[in-house]
Amino acid sequence: MAGNQRVCLIGAGPSGMSFLYHNSKLKAAGKKCADVVCYEKQSNWGGLWNYTWRTGLDEHGELCHGSQYRDLWSNGPKECLEYPDYTFYDHFGKVLPSFPPRAVLFDYLQGRWNKSNLRNYVTFNTVVKSVTFNKETDDFTVMVKDLSIDKDLPPERFSHVIVASGHFSVPVVPYFDGIDMFPGRVLHSHDFRRAREFKGQRLLVVGAKYSAEDIAMQCRKMGSGNVVCCYRTKPMGFSNWPAGIEERPLLTKVIGNTIHFKDGTTAEVDVIILCTGYMYHFPFMSESLRLKTKTELYPDGLYKGTVWMGGGNNKLMYLGMQDQYYSFTMFDIQAEWACAVVAGHLKLPNRRQMEADIKVWREEQKLLKDCYEDIAYQTKFVCDLASEVGCKYNLDVSALYNKWEDDRFANITTYRDQTFTSVFSGKTGIKHHTPWFKAFDDSLETFVNQTPNK
Amino acid sequence: MAGNQRVCLIGAGPSGMSFLYHNSKLKAAGKKCADVVCYEKQSNWGGLWNYTWRTGLDEHGELCHGSQYRDLWSNGPKECLEYPDYTFYDHFGKVLPSFPPRAVLFDYLQGRWNKSNLRNYVTFNTVVKSVTFNKETDDFTVMVKDLSIDKDLPPERFSHVIVASGHFSVPVVPYFDGIDMFPGRVLHSHDFRRAREFKGQRLLVVGAKYSAEDIAMQCRKMGSGNVVCCYRTKPMGFSNWPAGIEERPLLTKVIGNTIHFKDGTTAEVDVIILCTGYMYHFPFMSESLRLKTKTELYPDGLYKGTVWMGGGNNKLMYLGMQDQYYSFTMFDIQAEWACAVVAGHLKLPNRRQMEADIKVWREEQKLLKDCYEDIAYQTKFVCDLASEVGCKYNLDVSALYNKWEDDRFANITTYRDQTFTSVFSGKTGIKHHTPWFKAFDDSLETFVNQTPNK
Repeated sequence: MAGNQRVCLIGAGPSGMSFLYHNSKLKAAGKKCADVVCYEKQSNWGGLWNYTWRTGLDEHGELCHGSQYRDLWSNGPKECLEYPDYTFYDHFGKVLPSFPPRAVLFDYLQGRWNKSNLRNYVTFNTVVKSVTFNKETDDFTVMVKDLSIDKDLPPERFSHVIVASGHFSVPVVPYFDGIDMFPGRVLHSHDFRRAREFKGQRLLVVGAKYSAEDIAMQCRKMGSGNVVCCYRTKPMGFSNWPAGIEERPLLTKVIGNTIHFKDGTTAEVDVIILCTGYMYHFPFMSESLRLKTKTELYPDGLYKGTVWMGGGNNKLMYLGMQDQYYSFTMFDIQAEWACAVVAGHLKLPNRRQMEADIKVWREEQKLLKDCYEDIAYQTKFVCDLASEVGCKYNLDVSALYNKWEDDRFANITTYRDQTFTSVFSGKTGIKHHTPWFKAFDDSLETFVNQTPNK
Repeated sequence: MAGNQRVCLIGAGPSGMSFLYHNSKLKAAGKKCADVVCYEKQSNWGGLWNYTWRTGLDEHGELCHGSQYRDLWSNGPKECLEYPDYTFYDHFGKVLPSFPPRAVLFDYLQGRWNKSNLRNYVTFNTVVKSVTFNKETDDFTVMVKDLSIDKDLPPERFSHVIVASGHFSVPVVPYFDGIDMFPGRVLHSHDFRRAREFKGQRLLVVGAKYSAEDIAMQCRKMGSGNVVCCYRTKPMGFSNWPAGIEERPLLTKVIGNTIHFKDGTTAEVDVIILCTGYMYHFPFMSESLRLKTKTELYPDGLYKGTVWMGGGNNKLMYLGMQDQYYSFTMFDIQAEWACAVVAGHLKLPNRRQMEADIKVWREEQKLLKDCYEDIAYQTKFVCDLASEVGCKYNLDVSALYNKWEDDRFANITTYRDQTFTSVFSGKTGIKHHTPWFKAFDDSLETFVNQTPNK
């Protein structure tokens, strides 16, 4: 198909796979589409959902992408993240509880990708080493290393570059006075793999976002000693923490096993787990192409949250770089929109209009006061993209998200025992065989058949 | 000093610092020397000796360089690694025991570097991202990122590149059947920081080199449970392992907490520590400039173990890439030799002669039968470089190394309690206040004053 745009897609996680999915849908429909080369550093697709036991560096000496832990269960209802055109009911052929464990979600994702035979589009074990823009020829040069043979490949030229390599892989690890002399284990949540490792150990969890909450809960569930969580800005503030979890203001220093906090209290701990977030890290992008942002719902410099404004040619896009309530469906509509732009089915406005649009969104973002307003804002963002591509589904699941937040604030231990109704399949999740806090069997088989081993 | 060679030096560990040391000596003596720009990724000099509490990735999302652990004591006598022109006696002004803890060695190294005011030559927090060779202009283009401001710097041109970034920083982490489902902690020795973390835990140590031996010993010393070491090729074979350490053939699979070994035996463990070595990892060097080798005393393709033969222009050198008995003194004479070559004080033979020389060394290497022959071989390598630069010292400390090996085989628990006599200062190390296996205070102050806290 001569004349097609030639796209370099970086990463085969949910965002990248959605780009391949929608591009192949255009192709199947006989519409103009791009020629896509997808480079994936890992040996399998799935991004973070491709669980790895490795930590730190991977088998090729590259940054280990995986941040998920073995015991992870979805912290949002599956009804909030299911694809409208491929529901959980479509995939499993039965009604299931609303909060699946890790392996179930990965299976679901792979179902959609396999159905469209997307594996052939991914080049595994290849890592993008540099992306530069050629002003004269208005295209990009991409340098790639084939990790399986430890060789640099010849430079490739592309009309477009789509960065879908995620932003939950490179940990932010702050220094605290004395942490270097702490006699116990110090790790970032990026390297947290099994809650069982901490059985009987007293934990300090630094952070107040999802990782902090979930790792504290997981560790207590799996038999850790007491957990003290501490926060820089504000506590998570759940009124129903299970026994043995408490919150305090940030630590000020570490002396031996003793942690000193801002409120003057101290605690003795065996392990420090830093749930201190991740950095946006694109060292392979040349300086002028590199997204630099903090985590927010509408990062600056991306039109419709996607098109990189820095380059001036609108041919570089970033997928999934938003702070996330919506996840798979947001990546998917964003990828569909990006496909339409690349293939020329959707025209971008002029630069001034795009900049004005970004400004409006970012001004609105400033006014958001709580999680419910965040959810409404991100719903609007998702529905705006959907309307641009003429999506036939109403992607608004804000009512489910709002209920989910209510459930969490009502009881952080039991919120995963609640059920939700899919707006796409109309099915209501069934009650899980065992309350989450007492459910230790997280295998796919057990979840799908609802037959716990014991 | 127009007309000088312009050298890009990568890394400010012992090898890189020795290059700066000898180059500044040439300058001080009014001799022709190079203009050197030294890029160091970390915020301080010392390479591996710049201990870090971090693991996996560093504060900038770069590969964490440090592999040393808090409780490390030298595993070779200080008399085998001291600089002839700056002895331990010169630095500390007193006679000390032969096996110092980590902080003492770092202090010693810094003494020599500070004395020559070398800090000004190092650009910290800068990581080399790419090195390419320009055939037309017979020089190199080097791309560097300033980590402190997260910015790519403008490309720089250099006549020479010296790679001194080490080869003990990027772990080789093999997969074993079932290790991904092991319920306990799995780590590589690269991420081992404190032996105390394993108190009471049963350990599997995979490997049979220095890391395996020392980590097994450290952990038992610090109160771990039993340790099973396992080997692929041959056991370490020490006859006097302390109680609670044993050796077995390699594991074949992991089922739950149970490790299965090649000899059909099993062991229950809580932690798996992979002491499975490091890879030579120079992703920043373009393919044709990249040293690829296994760990050996004389890696292929380096004339005098130093000049890269791949490029054909003799202006790319690698320092300290040898498997090591000799360490600081070997790096130092290699760096002195490299300085002399770069400045033009030493002429290289033609390519055919260099290739023939490499071949002779590598043929001889093939015949080496045991550690004593290895030591004699590396002694010859060191003395050969010394003779080329007209070094006035006899760097041969093979007699000390041989005695050290004897001591280790006689008793792996007590070999660090032995003393050695410096061939440079003539001083004999004094007896340490406490046998190493019972010495828990490893501070510099205590060691230098020989006044343990308890």
